[in-house]
Amino acid sequence: MKITRIDLTPVAFADPPLLNSAGVHEPWALRTIVEVHTDEGISGLGETYGDLAHIERLKTVVPSLIGLDVFALGLMHKRVGESLGGQTGEDTHGLTGQFSAPGTVDRVYSPFEVACLDIQGRAIGRPVVDLLGGKVRETVPYSAYLFYKWAGHPGAPDDQWGEAIDPAGVVAQARQLIDEYGFKSIKLKGGVFPPEQEIEAIKALREAFPDTPLRLDPNAAWTPATGIKVAKQLDGIVEYLEDPSPEIEGMAEVAASAPMPLATNMCVVSFEHLAPSVKVNAVQVILSDHHYWGGLRRSAHLAMICRTFGIGLSMHSNSHLGISLAAMTHLAAATPNLTYACDTHYPWNAADDVVAPGALSFVDGSLAVPPGPGLGVELDRDVLARLAENYRNCGITKRNDTGYMQKFDPSYEMRRPRW
Amino acid sequence: MKITRIDLTPVAFADPPLLNSAGVHEPWALRTIVEVHTDEGISGLGETYGDLAHIERLKTVVPSLIGLDVFALGLMHKRVGESLGGQTGEDTHGLTGQFSAPGTVDRVYSPFEVACLDIQGRAIGRPVVDLLGGKVRETVPYSAYLFYKWAGHPGAPDDQWGEAIDPAGVVAQARQLIDEYGFKSIKLKGGVFPPEQEIEAIKALREAFPDTPLRLDPNAAWTPATGIKVAKQLDGIVEYLEDPSPEIEGMAEVAASAPMPLATNMCVVSFEHLAPSVKVNAVQVILSDHHYWGGLRRSAHLAMICRTFGIGLSMHSNSHLGISLAAMTHLAAATPNLTYACDTHYPWNAADDVVAPGALSFVDGSLAVPPGPGLGVELDRDVLARLAENYRNCGITKRNDTGYMQKFDPSYEMRRPRW
Repeated sequence: MKITRIDLTPVAFADPPLLNSAGVHEPWALRTIVEVHTDEGISGLGETYGDLAHIERLKTVVPSLIGLDVFALGLMHKRVGESLGGQTGEDTHGLTGQFSAPGTVDRVYSPFEVACLDIQGRAIGRPVVDLLGGKVRETVPYSAYLFYKWAGHPGAPDDQWGEAIDPAGVVAQARQLIDEYGFKSIKLKGGVFPPEQEIEAIKALREAFPDTPLRLDPNAAWTPATGIKVAKQLDGIVEYLEDPSPEIEGMAEVAASAPMPLATNMCVVSFEHLAPSVKVNAVQVILSDHHYWGGLRRSAHLAMICRTFGIGLSMHSNSHLGISLAAMTHLAAATPNLTYACDTHYPWNAADDVVAPGALSFVDGSLAVPPGPGLGVELDRDVLARLAENYRNCGITKRNDTGYMQKFDPSYEMRRPRW
Repeated sequence: MKITRIDLTPVAFADPPLLNSAGVHEPWALRTIVEVHTDEGISGLGETYGDLAHIERLKTVVPSLIGLDVFALGLMHKRVGESLGGQTGEDTHGLTGQFSAPGTVDRVYSPFEVACLDIQGRAIGRPVVDLLGGKVRETVPYSAYLFYKWAGHPGAPDDQWGEAIDPAGVVAQARQLIDEYGFKSIKLKGGVFPPEQEIEAIKALREAFPDTPLRLDPNAAWTPATGIKVAKQLDGIVEYLEDPSPEIEGMAEVAASAPMPLATNMCVVSFEHLAPSVKVNAVQVILSDHHYWGGLRRSAHLAMICRTFGIGLSMHSNSHLGISLAAMTHLAAATPNLTYACDTHYPWNAADDVVAPGALSFVDGSLAVPPGPGLGVELDRDVLARLAENYRNCGITKRNDTGYMQKFDPSYEMRRPRW
């Protein structure tokens, strides 16, 4: 079953003003919808980043994939690497760590692999989870992903979630998300306010939700000394502390004194980071993400590496749509050692999903694996066309949280660590 | 597609008197042929060890596998573990390292996984290699596996290979195997004679085959001090030295001074051995073996671990038949980082293969992946019946190289290290 054509459709969807250690989310988030078509009339879906440079890299590799068998994933990975010829991407928003050449190959390869697994599943009448060893859990738990945020984008009306810039706002947001989705764990994106204020927010969450596992992620906003201080103050309160400090060395320094596990999606984001991290025990939890670990099969390898080296496993998310959510759910359902609920931005962007309704609905904070063959999701062509039109009109071609923040606060500087 | 029945057929096949650091191969080698049947009329094949205790463990888990979907491999692994309840196997022949509870689960699970992948492939009309990511090489290179050996079993006529107890005999054996199979690498099983004699044999091979990569495997017969001495004498002559000394600690000690990579199939034989080994850089090459690393998918995980931690990858073999050889070939063809030719005992036992002729023929020392769906091999029922009859009559129920040696040399002691 050979690949005959690949369509790349950049899309933009409305995104709330979510704050983080690099600035604030712009009004539009970008993604690329990937459709792989075959000579047997079966097509498959993938979803990936929408930054222009990434789209250019996707376009660069597409010709080398035409004619490939959809089961030839090893060869596909090789061809992607050859086509990119050592290019490295750029972390324009400063939130997912530095790109390496192999990490860039994995990022570019990922949506094609997912689309091929979708095709394989459709061809044989099996959900993608079955191509990954089958379900080891019926449903996949996700966490409530809280953000400090403005009430609305400057100059626009307030959004449905309103403002969250203090502990009370954060607790109210948690209630909103939990009421609507039933999440059983909570993650707060921090790195926005001085650590004392964020500790207060976590303590307020603990008081409001006494039995709910909590996490805090300042995106490397703290020096190791600050990281250690915060870690000690949050002892017994958070299940893990995510990326308190920059780089493997900084994380190792915090980890040596922190009473809880440290998690990362910043300093260990590609296979070549694992050995250096393991050597100094920099992180005790890895937030897997099939978009940058090279698709579902390579993420399954990562899971086994975590298991083998005694590292916990959670799942990272950027702003994404339903194709990604479906892929994450198939993967997580097949992963025995998923030790924490997965992160997802989905609630913040669900209104604009390109996936036709019905396949993905949260129950008690968890998703069942879509039962249909392949990923089990179908494109809503009308929404896709609308989001593609957004992309053409929005004027954004790469994510830039810092630049957007500076429009409103010209004195804002991207500093890491900041405290 | 649910499992309805599993047939386990213990078999015995003629084995020459091959010498090693634990003694000598008995006249019969044991294996178990596994046939998994489904409610859709498709069946699949697996092959595993034939020791009685292993067969008992296979029988223990079979009831828990009936009714399972053949794609539910994660669940199957879990059920095998639950059924075994922490049992550990025993390395009766002293040649593959100590068993752990998780290692025992992987050993018992392996043939069922292989059979399920065979079924999956047959059901969808694809070779097993396609279920592992597809071919990244058209053919899989194997090495000539030389053994010191007697001319024949005591009391029996000489076999077709004749005696090899000195450098000249070893070189003659290499010529025989290379003439017949075309192998491009050579491994000598050592640990039989004092290291000086084995160094001479390797040097004789180097002289006779100036461009052929060579390896020596004394199965941990040497103290670390001896291992270091031999390693220095073989500098520039062997591509790797396999298991010179016992255990991770001993290997690490040799590795610290050895000029070539050290390989193992003895001190790192299960996932839980990887972290301790990586920590002290005990081995630089792992000899993968799907029979004890838990089947083909888990062996693919192992390959990625090796790649991630900068460890070379080769493939181990015990005495085996064509079902195993087919599975090894599918796996190796899908493994990008197979950095060395695979070992195989197959030439020593090929005359008794349960696989119908035609699917597996060496060309220039390599095997093409059998093209048919699944593993691409079929049972020869007449041979299977004959080998099952051998098993019932041969009187051997567990491999015991030391005991067999002691029949002829009552003073023989199993000592490790011996030199």
